[in-house]
Amino acid sequence: MNSPAPVSVSIDPVELAQALIRRPSVTPADAGAMDTLQRQLEALGFACRRMTFGEIENLYARRGTARPNLCFAGHTDVVPVGDDAAWTAGPFEAEIKDGILFGRGAVDMKSAIAAFVAAVANVPDHAGSISFLITGDEEGVAEDGTVKVVEALAAEGEIIDHCIVGEPTSANVLGDMVKIGRRGSINAWIAVDGKQGHVAYPHRAANPIPVMVDILSRLQSRVLDEGYTGFQPSNLEVTTVDVGNTATNVIPASAKARVNIRFNPAHKGKDLAAWIERECREAAEGFSGRVEALCKISGEAFLTEPGAFTDVIVAAVGDATGRVPELSTTGGTSDARFIRALCPVVEFGLVGSTMHQVDERVPVEEVRQLAGAYEALINRYFAAFA
Amino acid sequence: MNSPAPVSVSIDPVELAQALIRRPSVTPADAGAMDTLQRQLEALGFACRRMTFGEIENLYARRGTARPNLCFAGHTDVVPVGDDAAWTAGPFEAEIKDGILFGRGAVDMKSAIAAFVAAVANVPDHAGSISFLITGDEEGVAEDGTVKVVEALAAEGEIIDHCIVGEPTSANVLGDMVKIGRRGSINAWIAVDGKQGHVAYPHRAANPIPVMVDILSRLQSRVLDEGYTGFQPSNLEVTTVDVGNTATNVIPASAKARVNIRFNPAHKGKDLAAWIERECREAAEGFSGRVEALCKISGEAFLTEPGAFTDVIVAAVGDATGRVPELSTTGGTSDARFIRALCPVVEFGLVGSTMHQVDERVPVEEVRQLAGAYEALINRYFAAFA
Repeated sequence: MNSPAPVSVSIDPVELAQALIRRPSVTPADAGAMDTLQRQLEALGFACRRMTFGEIENLYARRGTARPNLCFAGHTDVVPVGDDAAWTAGPFEAEIKDGILFGRGAVDMKSAIAAFVAAVANVPDHAGSISFLITGDEEGVAEDGTVKVVEALAAEGEIIDHCIVGEPTSANVLGDMVKIGRRGSINAWIAVDGKQGHVAYPHRAANPIPVMVDILSRLQSRVLDEGYTGFQPSNLEVTTVDVGNTATNVIPASAKARVNIRFNPAHKGKDLAAWIERECREAAEGFSGRVEALCKISGEAFLTEPGAFTDVIVAAVGDATGRVPELSTTGGTSDARFIRALCPVVEFGLVGSTMHQVDERVPVEEVRQLAGAYEALINRYFAAFA
Repeated sequence: MNSPAPVSVSIDPVELAQALIRRPSVTPADAGAMDTLQRQLEALGFACRRMTFGEIENLYARRGTARPNLCFAGHTDVVPVGDDAAWTAGPFEAEIKDGILFGRGAVDMKSAIAAFVAAVANVPDHAGSISFLITGDEEGVAEDGTVKVVEALAAEGEIIDHCIVGEPTSANVLGDMVKIGRRGSINAWIAVDGKQGHVAYPHRAANPIPVMVDILSRLQSRVLDEGYTGFQPSNLEVTTVDVGNTATNVIPASAKARVNIRFNPAHKGKDLAAWIERECREAAEGFSGRVEALCKISGEAFLTEPGAFTDVIVAAVGDATGRVPELSTTGGTSDARFIRALCPVVEFGLVGSTMHQVDERVPVEEVRQLAGAYEALINRYFAAFA
């Protein structure tokens, strides 16, 4: 066992959450949020490294040098406030009313960061290492955030053994759900270019719409799968189709559409991209115009198989809440998709129902309960893995 | 035989065409075009009635009271000039360069009106009656033009026995084509309303696009017919599809599309409307949202069967041009669709290749040749039918 700095400070997770919320760190702005966190971590004996990519602030902080290295990952950036005037309390005032903390980032996810810091403060002496991987670019394009930090850490041989991501995963009450994987996501931009003309003389034109309808019909009619252990069935949604022709007697020159697929581990992004491109080619057979499909994979599907690590988390959630969380893979993407390249990842945090909305809010008791769950998690983790 | 006023005047169709072109009568403006024409017809002994509907000037002029009544139908309004600066000569200057008359309306169809007036001037003494049905609303919405004049004439028992419409029907050279019918046209506006949501949670949303794709797929896959005597096969074109969703992770709330069908006499507009509505209903089965189809019939298909009247026209075209015209039903709609309610209608006029374009133009010799064809037509008509 190595010797982390034996710092004994008690931290109120609610006060720290308030301090973080008061920094209006709407992506890509940092507004001092990372400094607020770093000062707190340095006081707890963490070696802090700022990793700045483009205009984005990132932080990797570690206490201890031995393995196993348990990492907490999260983000200090938040989404825009929307209609400022519609908020009960100012979105960056972090006001507490009747035991409820209001503010942008209250659940997604400044309070979870504060809860983990408070948990760490209560475990001054532990085996192995504890680290924080915090980005300022999770809600934005996510190009200069976790993905680059993970690449840099991997390049220098930094080892993270297990990671807990503090995203708001609870569905209805704290502790009812943790996420052990996520579906992958791919977007395809499809363009069909034909030849404009008069509807009365279709032989002189090449209408792109029938080809587009054929492509979309092929794509939406495929049953991608019936599900995968721990996952919902993969799902395709056509998210837009646009031509923009205002004249009733004109055959338009071009049509555009966009498709999104959320897929389970039964698929790889590149295979889905190849399928989309193939269907476009086949639908274009005999068409005098041009068909193009541009596919972009946002993330592959991944799963952290239930086992010793998930057991630790389930037990810790039980300690603090009395609940047995469902191990789920539902919902959107998160930075866990990048961290899985380094180690097993599980996500656990607050109830997400008000995230991204006006009046984002959390009961202060839930923040304290989350800190308790994280503290139990740290203790159980090192008991199991050190 | 009744006694039309025996006026003997010689009229140069090119000069009259120039006078008409110099009136910038872009729909709905008249700009004095109807007055210019009326003065000329009054000088030729015509009884002129102005029929004004809304802001539109219309003219019904007749010489003689006996039957048969041969009517010439046309329009003094023109489409906008487009890029004024791109014209070789000003669009309303009616300049003649190297024997070519330039101007908006040169072929569609002020020169044809002028040619028929010149033809009438050369036939001062005829059996039956000659009439003009001229509107100022053919290129616009066509709601206060020929359709209303026809209704008014029918209501008062005015009889027109045969009608020749002066639209530019010639394809490559004057006299190579006359039109003995037109396809019908119907537009359908289709709207699918679902429920917006996040692509990761499709069960909470109702994507309207799959239903729209299904509807369009059903519509475009039907072979409407293999053609009809004298007609091309009926044809459906989807002219636009629009959603306007800019977010890759959002399922949109609604989708709109528009369809146009050009149909031969194998179909009635109302049957096609019922079919479109039926396909929409069937595609919507099991869909929690709403599907709506709004159909508007622009005109039914019609055919003037080849016979004594078309024989007169074919022979007159032969007299003036030496050509045997094809009897065709191709192309877009015209006011002939309204006049067919009164009598058999045939369309014959100049070469249409420059209509609606910058530098609309006609060789002056073709205008004189057309006047000759119309004169032969008048003489042959009364010889055959009086």
